[in-house]
Amino acid sequence: MPRQRVLSGMRPTGALHLGHYHGALKNWVRLQSSYDCFFFVADWHALTTQYQDSSNRNSIERNVYDMVVDWLAAGIDPEQATLFIQSRMPEHAELFTLLAMSTPSSWLERIPSYKDQVDKNRELATYGFLGYPLLQAADILIYKAAFVPVGEDQTAHVEVTREVARRFNRIYSPDKAILPEPLELLTDKPRLSGLDGQKMSKSYGNAIAMRDAPEVVEQKIRTMPTDPQRVRRGDAGEPSRCPVWPLHQVYSTPDLLEWAGQGCRSAGIGCLDCKQPLIEAIQKEQAPWRERANEYLANPKQVQWIVEVGTERARAVARKTLREVRAAIGLTY
Amino acid sequence: MPRQRVLSGMRPTGALHLGHYHGALKNWVRLQSSYDCFFFVADWHALTTQYQDSSNRNSIERNVYDMVVDWLAAGIDPEQATLFIQSRMPEHAELFTLLAMSTPSSWLERIPSYKDQVDKNRELATYGFLGYPLLQAADILIYKAAFVPVGEDQTAHVEVTREVARRFNRIYSPDKAILPEPLELLTDKPRLSGLDGQKMSKSYGNAIAMRDAPEVVEQKIRTMPTDPQRVRRGDAGEPSRCPVWPLHQVYSTPDLLEWAGQGCRSAGIGCLDCKQPLIEAIQKEQAPWRERANEYLANPKQVQWIVEVGTERARAVARKTLREVRAAIGLTY
Repeated sequence: MPRQRVLSGMRPTGALHLGHYHGALKNWVRLQSSYDCFFFVADWHALTTQYQDSSNRNSIERNVYDMVVDWLAAGIDPEQATLFIQSRMPEHAELFTLLAMSTPSSWLERIPSYKDQVDKNRELATYGFLGYPLLQAADILIYKAAFVPVGEDQTAHVEVTREVARRFNRIYSPDKAILPEPLELLTDKPRLSGLDGQKMSKSYGNAIAMRDAPEVVEQKIRTMPTDPQRVRRGDAGEPSRCPVWPLHQVYSTPDLLEWAGQGCRSAGIGCLDCKQPLIEAIQKEQAPWRERANEYLANPKQVQWIVEVGTERARAVARKTLREVRAAIGLTY
Repeated sequence: MPRQRVLSGMRPTGALHLGHYHGALKNWVRLQSSYDCFFFVADWHALTTQYQDSSNRNSIERNVYDMVVDWLAAGIDPEQATLFIQSRMPEHAELFTLLAMSTPSSWLERIPSYKDQVDKNRELATYGFLGYPLLQAADILIYKAAFVPVGEDQTAHVEVTREVARRFNRIYSPDKAILPEPLELLTDKPRLSGLDGQKMSKSYGNAIAMRDAPEVVEQKIRTMPTDPQRVRRGDAGEPSRCPVWPLHQVYSTPDLLEWAGQGCRSAGIGCLDCKQPLIEAIQKEQAPWRERANEYLANPKQVQWIVEVGTERARAVARKTLREVRAAIGLTY
């Protein structure tokens, strides 16, 4: 029995950080052996919100390849998964255009994140940003993906994809569904906190990159703020007030958590004592990534080749779907 | 000096009628010797309003080729003009998708025809119908057309194309405009009236097809209603009340108009007398069309070949523009 297809994409934000790994990439690595995974660089999606950003324009190619290297570093296996770049697939744009014809704009306007974001930033009130969930539907449907891994907050997007598919099938091919309706693969997307206790994010400057050198990790963690009320070594602290604590909860065993919690509350250990096992855990996690990344970085042609092969593999699937879609619409000449 | 480019499209409505000829095609024939004309079958545009129409699906291929035969019959010269089919050009969809990112949806919402039509028909409230002027902008801009022949009522569409181009250039390529702003080529679009005095239209059943046989034309004109107050041959009539009169104004010389007008008002001629020179004028106009159409109909492969060559010629231009557009956005990998 052929493996069912999973589709997921990531915007090209450049080198990934631990938040990306724990929030998505770790899950991709887990999925690739059970599913026929298609993972893509969502560079057109990035344009829906960053079209004005000219600095992005000069760095986008680098961002794309840095990200792909991090996927591979994390353990994505190009023999198992298909890796490709959205903007290399005009087929997505064609399906997007065709699906647009039968998709009520109200379905797109009512997606919760749309109005919120447009209200905050009028520059987002573009036709492309409004159509972003439809472009995403095209991304998914063109590969007839069975599953889309999403967090709780993105189920509306998969729901609209199903509606778009259902309406297309009903109008153009009522006897035989051409575009299968995908299901969510609900995954915890643990929100990793950054060096300041806020959500880890490149733009907040509070991130640890997947490929940060061991000494950089050490330096970043050692200089992290801790419980602001624990001013002196002898003061007792409270882990729930300390930005280091949520990272401990991700990286440390129950025993270690117990040790750190108790040591903090009793002033039995200092903050640097508490940070040391965390530094080591992150460095240990990173070691195999760095090793794999170095191999790929020494051979950039290989990374390009992986993307090239993935893009052509994806294209074969996309073209087949598009032929069926065109035939259903009557555009067969 | 190279000829400037003109772009125009027509929805595939099947065999064309005299209203199409006088409203658009006659002008195309005139333009082709002075401009580098790109004429295309706007089959994606037809989907923006007819996506629900399954009867259309079975006939669309025939409609496309019937229309192209009528273009050729009217005197469009494939050696001078480039003829192609929109749905064969995924490049248009890609440019549409990219332009969407920087185009405010308010520009599309405010186009006068949009709200009117959606208010009349809720099925038109689709993302595709909203984006129709943007798809049209992509059709025009991808060929860097200098001129777009339009009637007074369509200047808003060319205006929005200019705005889309201007904003794209400003954001992505402020030093050198990549997408030139097209100008309207304002043309009279004489509204030919049909057999019942309303606008000639296939859907009103009041049309004379370009390739109607001479005896069909004779029959259609002879049975046309005339001034309803001229009941008997002896009654005087009033041309302004007669549906035949506007056709006379298109087809007849001033002398003939004078003769018909006076003869009607004085009851000096009967309605069939009045109709006879009109029948002959239309038949005479059609004769060379029929001759050319018959040649092409005897050799359908030739028509396909003309479209094939035109599509590839158009594609070369479209791909070049798209390369420049992608480079400006930074999507060069």
